[in-house]
Amino acid sequence: MGRVTSRHKVVRIDLDRETTRSIDTVAGEEPLEIRVNGETFTVTMRTPGADVDLAHGLLRAEGVIAQREDVLSAVFCSDLDTLNVLNLTIPGRSVASAATGTRNLATLGGCGLCGTTAVEAVESVVSDRPPEVVWEAASVVAALDELRTRQQVFAKTGGTHAAGLAPAPAGTTGPDSPVKLAIVREDIGRHNAADKVLGAALVGEVDTRGGLLVMSSRASFEIVQKAAVAGVSVLACVSAPSSLAIEAADRLGVTLVAFARGRRLSVYSHSHRIPH
Amino acid sequence: MGRVTSRHKVVRIDLDRETTRSIDTVAGEEPLEIRVNGETFTVTMRTPGADVDLAHGLLRAEGVIAQREDVLSAVFCSDLDTLNVLNLTIPGRSVASAATGTRNLATLGGCGLCGTTAVEAVESVVSDRPPEVVWEAASVVAALDELRTRQQVFAKTGGTHAAGLAPAPAGTTGPDSPVKLAIVREDIGRHNAADKVLGAALVGEVDTRGGLLVMSSRASFEIVQKAAVAGVSVLACVSAPSSLAIEAADRLGVTLVAFARGRRLSVYSHSHRIPH
Repeated sequence: MGRVTSRHKVVRIDLDRETTRSIDTVAGEEPLEIRVNGETFTVTMRTPGADVDLAHGLLRAEGVIAQREDVLSAVFCSDLDTLNVLNLTIPGRSVASAATGTRNLATLGGCGLCGTTAVEAVESVVSDRPPEVVWEAASVVAALDELRTRQQVFAKTGGTHAAGLAPAPAGTTGPDSPVKLAIVREDIGRHNAADKVLGAALVGEVDTRGGLLVMSSRASFEIVQKAAVAGVSVLACVSAPSSLAIEAADRLGVTLVAFARGRRLSVYSHSHRIPH
Repeated sequence: MGRVTSRHKVVRIDLDRETTRSIDTVAGEEPLEIRVNGETFTVTMRTPGADVDLAHGLLRAEGVIAQREDVLSAVFCSDLDTLNVLNLTIPGRSVASAATGTRNLATLGGCGLCGTTAVEAVESVVSDRPPEVVWEAASVVAALDELRTRQQVFAKTGGTHAAGLAPAPAGTTGPDSPVKLAIVREDIGRHNAADKVLGAALVGEVDTRGGLLVMSSRASFEIVQKAAVAGVSVLACVSAPSSLAIEAADRLGVTLVAFARGRRLSVYSHSHRIPH
């Protein structure tokens, strides 16, 4: 069942204070499959709620409908308890070019579509869990500081996200073995910034397994997916995590850090990799 | 030819100072079509540059490739001067389930894919230009202030975007006719937040033509597309605009406001609707 928010355990690390444990409220993220006359039109990640509005707005923007009367009914698929499949009946409309916004979900059908299905789809691609590399909190903070200084397009435009990769060090990280970002890329889309960094690593033969991926953005399901496929051990994001990002990171063995600001980090999964 | 940044005219309105005109540097946004063995795999909006990295990263995350050696070559389609179509040769790989991240571009083929093509695709759906409604700068500022106070999920999670709609007033707006948001919606995705608000208007028979759409996010091409299809006259976003958002707003007749913070607005297109 879709929820607008959910609550998750968090470990708060502050380089200047004692580590604390608490519970955070995070924004819900679950897939919504929009069907037109029984055929998949698109699958999009969204915060549950106002889904009928969302479907009307999306179909209007895409030119599928022009007015309210074009839609005869909007009904959730009801044979399971997820409310993540919505079928709209639009008389006389055949949507031949079904397209998906979330590519890996293209082949998932049925009314069982939910966050767990999305995570399982990633598990089918990921062969191994990320290695057990230790990343000191001070190294994560330093990597994010470096990312900020290297956001050249952002400095000029204020309009881009950045991603950076620090490969796994030979030994443990810390003040004596300073972290260094091997690759930094910027893009208007945070998914693209992550793809550019991890793709550059693939092309340039930089090992991503066990590495640290830092992002200037929020942490969504798809960012965790990319990190997990690349075998990244720690994903650290400046802004908020989503519910499905946390669930995916937990299941896929990725250490998820969010709200990484100044000298503070919030760790939502597999916090054992970051000594605290 | 794709550019990482581009320069655009801007009118800066400050409720406490004189209006100034200058030139802003904004982040580039253009479609990239990624083909696998000549077949479209996806079309994504991105900032030009590091496109080969982007394609490798995306195809790896989607499970299409696992290592560098899986890709025999990555070659831009060269019969036009845009570098927005990249073909990867992946021996033995047939990508049956081609999917698109940017739905309205699904049917665009050829090497001529560029920002202008994307705008033209929207023009084919939009029947009329947005009406010539006057929106006072003070009203735009007030609407954004109201949006902030109504971001309930964001207040709890820090993880969602918000969109709000103020319908066109009967007369002109201003201190004597205070603006009021008729609909506010939140979502983890800014596109979804916009779709939810404009969809709710469609369902609830709230007229969007001539209205003001306020967004807590940046202004990308797709947000301008949604505003234009709904006949919204003024789109005001808290953060940065992209190059293609400005080009689309200019062509589609939408007044685009970005960096709308405090009592300041930057207007990138059709500034005549906002007296200054």
